[in-house]
Amino acid sequence: MNYLEKLKFSADSFGSIVCMGMDPVLEDIPLDRGPAGQRIFDFYAAILERMHKEKVYPAAVKPNYAFYAQYGFEGLDALYRLVRIYHAAGFPVILDVKRGDIGKTAEAYARESFEFFDADAVTLSPYMGLDSISPFMKNYPDRGYYILNKTSNKSSGDIQDVDAGGEPLFLHVSKKIVEWHRPGLGAVVGATYPAQLDAVSRIFVDSGKEVPLLIPGVGTQGGDVADVVKVLALGGDVRLHRINSSSAINFAYKKYPGMNFAEAAVMAIGELNDVIEKCISHETNK
Amino acid sequence: MNYLEKLKFSADSFGSIVCMGMDPVLEDIPLDRGPAGQRIFDFYAAILERMHKEKVYPAAVKPNYAFYAQYGFEGLDALYRLVRIYHAAGFPVILDVKRGDIGKTAEAYARESFEFFDADAVTLSPYMGLDSISPFMKNYPDRGYYILNKTSNKSSGDIQDVDAGGEPLFLHVSKKIVEWHRPGLGAVVGATYPAQLDAVSRIFVDSGKEVPLLIPGVGTQGGDVADVVKVLALGGDVRLHRINSSSAINFAYKKYPGMNFAEAAVMAIGELNDVIEKCISHETNK
Repeated sequence: MNYLEKLKFSADSFGSIVCMGMDPVLEDIPLDRGPAGQRIFDFYAAILERMHKEKVYPAAVKPNYAFYAQYGFEGLDALYRLVRIYHAAGFPVILDVKRGDIGKTAEAYARESFEFFDADAVTLSPYMGLDSISPFMKNYPDRGYYILNKTSNKSSGDIQDVDAGGEPLFLHVSKKIVEWHRPGLGAVVGATYPAQLDAVSRIFVDSGKEVPLLIPGVGTQGGDVADVVKVLALGGDVRLHRINSSSAINFAYKKYPGMNFAEAAVMAIGELNDVIEKCISHETNK
Repeated sequence: MNYLEKLKFSADSFGSIVCMGMDPVLEDIPLDRGPAGQRIFDFYAAILERMHKEKVYPAAVKPNYAFYAQYGFEGLDALYRLVRIYHAAGFPVILDVKRGDIGKTAEAYARESFEFFDADAVTLSPYMGLDSISPFMKNYPDRGYYILNKTSNKSSGDIQDVDAGGEPLFLHVSKKIVEWHRPGLGAVVGATYPAQLDAVSRIFVDSGKEVPLLIPGVGTQGGDVADVVKVLALGGDVRLHRINSSSAINFAYKKYPGMNFAEAAVMAIGELNDVIEKCISHETNK
């Protein structure tokens, strides 16, 4: 199965297009026992167990490397083990590493993500151009590679919105993604900029190529699910795309007092699945 | 001592403005014994020992994270230990991580580089804008932060050379670096594009701000030292800048048959120091 097939298959099996970000912050993990790495592992293992109990699932997970690396080796050891158990449970694992380096170095990074961590997909930065991307695609043709395109953060415009010959730079990047296209090449586009998400998506739909979108920014960052679904309804197979939510799922227990953290997280996944499904049927029945 | 003082001090103490890249490739390390991590550690420890024996030094080292991470935990363990011994020997350690992520995530990456690995400086990608850079500067004000500006690789132009309102994007990034400036904020500019290096450098010199340059691309990548020194002579304190060479130093033994790898590496450092010094006196005596 290549990565596009994996995306479709997991959307079908899990009845979802949600991606659960896995961004551990020790202070927010309500487990007292054991060293940092063990608490991180136990936290996300409990959420996985609860998913099976409730039969409520996301259709991908996205651990962000930074949140593990900040705890040194024990954090990365937790990441290593978590990738394996989520992988074994059938979830596409998107390792959010945002790598971007010259050719030989990119080869080494690809080895790290795809061989050592055994991820299904990675996130990559486009700033250094094609030769920082191609070793990932060439050496691991069945994986996924999401290029940062228009990101969800406040200062994303500093570089991405620069006027590049009458269009913002991020649209130039979208066109490069079409130009560089291979199956599995996708784009990261934030839900916090719906007009820009729409513009990017039209470029991909018009190209006739399958470009899976990874859409962060709903939940804590404030992006609106209805806006996102309107864009996904523009064309193509909606099962290729993933709407990501991290802290609003991970730490949902803060919103539901008295509820166990794993129960709360899975309830938040279920709620997001439901909202997305409603928005999709609203678009379909228009 | 803040990072700028560290750069000046180390240039004076070691009589150099060379940065030795430390990019281990197991197949090129002529040590048979022990596991990967140990061989990597032993290799660079032997080069450090040889530096002391010959009293020939670079004035910074730059391990690239990818080359360690590709070997998993034992690679990163070697990196951890190497940062410490080079640090203890007085070298500014530039951790080449090319991080770029949103605010909270950038905080986690800064903790990894500056607390866990205890690096003096990092490399950062500008694509996500100021809020992906500022946590490094704000939380660790005495360190160094090199922003990718015009990189040395072949496809760097895919994004960096895009016409952004009459100037290439990379010059827009140079101006952003001036705008975002704090002591320690620097730029990565490749030696392989001397005209672009010149243009970037003029922006920094004209701004009147001290922007340390990290210049990769001499040696194996083909950049010319004389071109680089001509640019450094434009103005400002030359001791703030570093000319990086990685594989041409690391694996110099391939060029000198019969010579021990550590001897060859230190000879290559000495030769690069000499060439730079000659070019500097040529510029000074013009």
